[in-house]
Amino acid sequence: MKIAFVTGNREKFEEDKAILSENGIECEHINLDCPEIQADPQEIAKHKAKYAAEKIGKACFVDDTALCFNALNGLPGEYIKFFADKLGLKKLVKLLDGFEDKTAKAMAVVAYCKPGIEPVVFEGVVNGKIVEARGNRFVWDPIFQPDGHSQTYAEMPQEEKNKISHRKKAMEKFVKYLKEE
Amino acid sequence: MKIAFVTGNREKFEEDKAILSENGIECEHINLDCPEIQADPQEIAKHKAKYAAEKIGKACFVDDTALCFNALNGLPGEYIKFFADKLGLKKLVKLLDGFEDKTAKAMAVVAYCKPGIEPVVFEGVVNGKIVEARGNRFVWDPIFQPDGHSQTYAEMPQEEKNKISHRKKAMEKFVKYLKEE
Repeated sequence: MKIAFVTGNREKFEEDKAILSENGIECEHINLDCPEIQADPQEIAKHKAKYAAEKIGKACFVDDTALCFNALNGLPGEYIKFFADKLGLKKLVKLLDGFEDKTAKAMAVVAYCKPGIEPVVFEGVVNGKIVEARGNRFVWDPIFQPDGHSQTYAEMPQEEKNKISHRKKAMEKFVKYLKEE
Repeated sequence: MKIAFVTGNREKFEEDKAILSENGIECEHINLDCPEIQADPQEIAKHKAKYAAEKIGKACFVDDTALCFNALNGLPGEYIKFFADKLGLKKLVKLLDGFEDKTAKAMAVVAYCKPGIEPVVFEGVVNGKIVEARGNRFVWDPIFQPDGHSQTYAEMPQEEKNKISHRKKAMEKFVKYLKEE
């Protein structure tokens, strides 16, 4: 089986490709700009998957990420990349200076769509906390330390992160779906 | 002259109507849901005005607002309503606890569009600072204190706010344009 992964992010592609290939699923990289609507993460991902499936004329998936600070009622959420680009990691962490609660949720939303059919969505969530940046990988990996670990996502070897990540959890559900399809 | 103002916000309508009527321009309220794209404030407003003009089949304007915290490199910006809804004003102010700089810019972006013609945009900016909420009006009026004033937007009588506001500045440019058109 070979499926198309629509993303502009090469690191994301490598992570998902590794997870899929463990399950005997080949993954093709398609770099296509999809319009982002303002909505909740599930709706944004569905909208993008549907757009992409129609554009490229075959089944594909997108993989969106959200980082939700619990003290901020879920913000930045799906806007994390925008926040990180705008603020940088140092200021992003400082947003929590006024708050006791440093806990956060890392969320992945995978949306899969075949042309002409409504997209399906798979979610993965990892609880953790926001810390001063340690390590260097991906956008916000250095400031997220998953519960039960002493390293941030960015400090973990890639294979270890892939075993426990929010994306892994979402992809597992997606793989299960693909195998049963 | 009578023009259509497309907004879901009744208070906004009343403010702009007052400013326009001082200039002999009548204003009709049209409540239409316009899709919000993820982009900079000017592009968002243009997109909405164009969408609305085509939908209702006549010239209309939209009026978007941004509140930019300077310490946060312009955030929340055009996402201010989303932030305020999500966080409430208390937490919104606490975002700046880790930062010395409490200054902010209030911005209005008015986009005017006739069906079939590219929209034009008018901006108004007021400098000020973010304070603990005082007064009660509009979404974030209680936490914005314009430079040179001891009251927040929300504490000022409506007529006084209308004289100095970011919206007033944008509307003045818009009125000038309408009169010369």
